[in-house]
Amino acid sequence: MDVLQAIQTRRSIRSYTDRPIDEETLKKLLEAAMCAPSANNKRPWHFVVIRDREQLAVISRIQRYHRPIGQAACCIVVCGDESVQETHDFLLNDCSAAAQNLLLAAHGLGLGAVWCGVRTGADVSRYLKQTLSFPQSVVPIALIAVGYPAEEPKAGDRLDPSRIHYEKW
Amino acid sequence: MDVLQAIQTRRSIRSYTDRPIDEETLKKLLEAAMCAPSANNKRPWHFVVIRDREQLAVISRIQRYHRPIGQAACCIVVCGDESVQETHDFLLNDCSAAAQNLLLAAHGLGLGAVWCGVRTGADVSRYLKQTLSFPQSVVPIALIAVGYPAEEPKAGDRLDPSRIHYEKW
Repeated sequence: MDVLQAIQTRRSIRSYTDRPIDEETLKKLLEAAMCAPSANNKRPWHFVVIRDREQLAVISRIQRYHRPIGQAACCIVVCGDESVQETHDFLLNDCSAAAQNLLLAAHGLGLGAVWCGVRTGADVSRYLKQTLSFPQSVVPIALIAVGYPAEEPKAGDRLDPSRIHYEKW
Repeated sequence: MDVLQAIQTRRSIRSYTDRPIDEETLKKLLEAAMCAPSANNKRPWHFVVIRDREQLAVISRIQRYHRPIGQAACCIVVCGDESVQETHDFLLNDCSAAAQNLLLAAHGLGLGAVWCGVRTGADVSRYLKQTLSFPQSVVPIALIAVGYPAEEPKAGDRLDPSRIHYEKW
């Protein structure tokens, strides 16, 4: 699928079939994530792939908007290492760019995904750090639920000219 | 260009020809940016397109890593509105995803681009807010220098298996 078309037609997919994701496809998603740019090329990211159904069920119940995780073939926890990138804003930039690559790659491969946001200090952040034994300096930045789509939301026109300014505000 | 190929072959381009970017192409870049997902679909982004050569020159000199802006056909300031998305982490997530879409769209359209990072409180952030007359709640999140590429950096293998963990760290 063409990159512009992929960007335009990608939607958040929150409902999945029970078809699993094979290793080769999973590797492509993670490779795409690692192709993101990063401040000073520090690549401060790590990825934890969760497929254990009990664990997915627990995670899906911590935050109301994270329910799709309970049904997904897997959840990829995009993490940032604060000891590699000490500037919090840049850590979020880098890991968010990786997460967006992952979403687009999933769409290009016929998968569906949704980005479940994790803010600093949220309950789900504490749970993941403890339960998944993260090192002290590693924080979860985003949870990406991925699976084969069981819904096909329409792509809308998302160009909003009121958000574009020339030379100044 | 296929989306996976675009993700894998995109590189930061810091050197540009003097060919300008036409309106149609610019609009495609901004549309791609606005196709990013956002927390609670708040779309807290704005985009300021700077093509004034004197302004580009000034901006390029504030921060050492921002020099490519001085040579670029334009600089797109990706901004976030804190009154629309009050959670700083989510504002960065959303605007970073928009910036990554913009970079990939540029690559797909034969343009070259580089993400110049802007952290909260940086000199360049203050300069832009004042000079471009941003509303109080709007902050610059990323500067994207864009132009037709005058260099062609090689794409390397960026899959690092040591960054992948299964079920837990």
